[in-house]
Amino acid sequence: MVAHWPATTALNHAQTMTNQQPNGPQNGGAAIAVTPTAIDLPGHQLVLGEDEPLRLASGQKLGPFTVAYQTYGNLNAAKSNAILICHALTGDQYVAETHPVTGKDGWWCSVVGPGLTIDTQKYFVICINVLGGCMGTAGPKDIDPTTGAPFGLNFPVITITDMVAAQKLVIEHLGITKLFAVIGGSMGAMQALEWASRYPEMVFCAIPIAGAARHSAQNIAFHEVGRQAIMADPNWCAGSYYGKNVDPERGLAVARMAAHITYLSDSALHRKFGRNLQDRIEITFGFDADFQIESYLRHQGRSFVERFDANSYLYITRAMDYFDLAAEHGGSLPSAFEGSPVRFCLISFNSDWLFPTSESRQIVHALNAVAASVSFVEIETDSGHDAFLLEEPEFFRILSGFLRGAAEQHGLVGQAS
Amino acid sequence: MVAHWPATTALNHAQTMTNQQPNGPQNGGAAIAVTPTAIDLPGHQLVLGEDEPLRLASGQKLGPFTVAYQTYGNLNAAKSNAILICHALTGDQYVAETHPVTGKDGWWCSVVGPGLTIDTQKYFVICINVLGGCMGTAGPKDIDPTTGAPFGLNFPVITITDMVAAQKLVIEHLGITKLFAVIGGSMGAMQALEWASRYPEMVFCAIPIAGAARHSAQNIAFHEVGRQAIMADPNWCAGSYYGKNVDPERGLAVARMAAHITYLSDSALHRKFGRNLQDRIEITFGFDADFQIESYLRHQGRSFVERFDANSYLYITRAMDYFDLAAEHGGSLPSAFEGSPVRFCLISFNSDWLFPTSESRQIVHALNAVAASVSFVEIETDSGHDAFLLEEPEFFRILSGFLRGAAEQHGLVGQAS
Repeated sequence: MVAHWPATTALNHAQTMTNQQPNGPQNGGAAIAVTPTAIDLPGHQLVLGEDEPLRLASGQKLGPFTVAYQTYGNLNAAKSNAILICHALTGDQYVAETHPVTGKDGWWCSVVGPGLTIDTQKYFVICINVLGGCMGTAGPKDIDPTTGAPFGLNFPVITITDMVAAQKLVIEHLGITKLFAVIGGSMGAMQALEWASRYPEMVFCAIPIAGAARHSAQNIAFHEVGRQAIMADPNWCAGSYYGKNVDPERGLAVARMAAHITYLSDSALHRKFGRNLQDRIEITFGFDADFQIESYLRHQGRSFVERFDANSYLYITRAMDYFDLAAEHGGSLPSAFEGSPVRFCLISFNSDWLFPTSESRQIVHALNAVAASVSFVEIETDSGHDAFLLEEPEFFRILSGFLRGAAEQHGLVGQAS
Repeated sequence: MVAHWPATTALNHAQTMTNQQPNGPQNGGAAIAVTPTAIDLPGHQLVLGEDEPLRLASGQKLGPFTVAYQTYGNLNAAKSNAILICHALTGDQYVAETHPVTGKDGWWCSVVGPGLTIDTQKYFVICINVLGGCMGTAGPKDIDPTTGAPFGLNFPVITITDMVAAQKLVIEHLGITKLFAVIGGSMGAMQALEWASRYPEMVFCAIPIAGAARHSAQNIAFHEVGRQAIMADPNWCAGSYYGKNVDPERGLAVARMAAHITYLSDSALHRKFGRNLQDRIEITFGFDADFQIESYLRHQGRSFVERFDANSYLYITRAMDYFDLAAEHGGSLPSAFEGSPVRFCLISFNSDWLFPTSESRQIVHALNAVAASVSFVEIETDSGHDAFLLEEPEFFRILSGFLRGAAEQHGLVGQAS
């Protein structure tokens, strides 16, 4: 079911293709080529932008560069059963299998798989590590061939638009002209919206979960705290820590700790941890992790730095901050969806204070304003933003119900299960 | 109106007094003496615990140690018009005058002063820098006379109970047997609750604003992020940065930035900053402070480190984390107020997500359960937790209305205005 190629092999035999230039004619200047760092990760890798570079939102051009992705299930003969799953800030392409670095379950193992909500016996599921990432797709830790050294902060700043433009090249490479669905939570929802807005003819339905059409001031604020924590770490070395035997681990851990609080609701934290003490029966009158919540956060910070690159964290948070779908359309969010044939299903969680329901509602209003097809459900849960990653039966029911209906409309009925 | 003594003079002629041992008999071990660092700040300083040290909640004993405080207005002959104002985490005793370090208005200049809500023509207002602080009261930057060096992390961990016990000694030193009111917001509310619970005979009325009877898991989490940011700064030197010509400024700034987000509501951030750019008309595709919210947060971080000691930040956040009034009374919050003669007025703000209304309501329920006298108002505002520091007419009306009624009951009518 799961097709793995050793990354090194995939690179040796990497397929290349021509960039379709989604952002208009290229401007002057040489394209930025990216040599991937040698990694040994399972899955597919593809070299893009070799003949014609990808023009980024910044105006810079990128190519050739590598994109890593993972697939589950089989593409049908009509190539009509493909679902693109877009991952969140710290996610990656290992959706539905053991993660090759952490050894833990993939981030959506509870949703994607044979017989599950996103049934890999029925659908061909693709997930692509985003541009700027650190799991095989071009990012700041890769090598700048003009210097022979890792890019660090010389890597071009990328946007959600750029991530999606790169994904489009992969989808085209796979011979898919129309995705059955684009699905994503959090930053994945931003990508799903961008896909539906920019390439509506390539998307049958879009399911943005716990998302927003733009990053709010509070969200930018939390990201800025994380970035400042990383940049305050002297081991960050202005982004040039690679190969120096140092890592801005402490700064990145603090960034992760701060972000992690925003992924959970106050009541979930209270339910899970309250004021319970960690391995002790009395407070110690000191600065050790007396409370379980402290111990948990420290663990979250420590384990994150083992699998994530600090500069990638800077780049991807920046891409989220810059996302503003209305601004891309003259300040009008409805304009982003004018005449859209895409069927939308928006899902939010009532305890999510990072991407609150009001953000999803704004998108629904915009879709209504242009008479687009839209379903919208707010799920009751106390799990906060991370609810989309957890066992939430009501969420699973909504997701599978919408997919079933859309599959019927798309002529996918009877193919499986 | 405002009585200032140069701190150095006050110390030379410091008055001393005997500790009343609020926490039962002292245990063994020598008391921890604290020699204040030489500072030149206006206001009163008092040496406490010289004859008999203060027993801390940790079991350690403290003495002699210095407490700095400020007063406004005049104590009447009956000594019945004293209001103790308890400051918040990063506040200090300079409530209603130009701050001697920052040159800005004191933190409650809009509330405390002649003819204002807390009228210094009528009341004698006292505010005491908390134990562990850095504005003249004993804290980690002071000198351990046994080593001749600053304490750093060797300073004893203090609690809200300890802060209040030290305040009680100051109040007694001033010859006041009963405070007309104890008022405070945020950590100040914790102190007001502790005062009312532990010394009910000394408090006529208590006004805890935007407070809680215990620090929640989410609150502890945010504090832990701040502490970890400080401790991740190599300039922190395990707390021994004093005299080394280094300061954990970057870590403290990150801590302040993270905390500052929690003081404002999402909608206030949206209203004040939205996605507005700072001194530019387009995003720069980089990591500068493109957005106003980033620039604002960086400014908050930078200006904070100029007036606050990083170790004090560790100690005071820890005191808040440890606060749990129910736990001090066998797990029963009503027991904390059993038979209380104190008149309570609780105030919360509907957009405060750090100390939400539900926390104040829990206290109201506990007070109701023991038939205590309690008023409770939730103020409508979008300003978040910091609303108690801002111009909030409805808040001022509630506060002055309650004080007027309580003053009548306390026989203070007709003394002034």
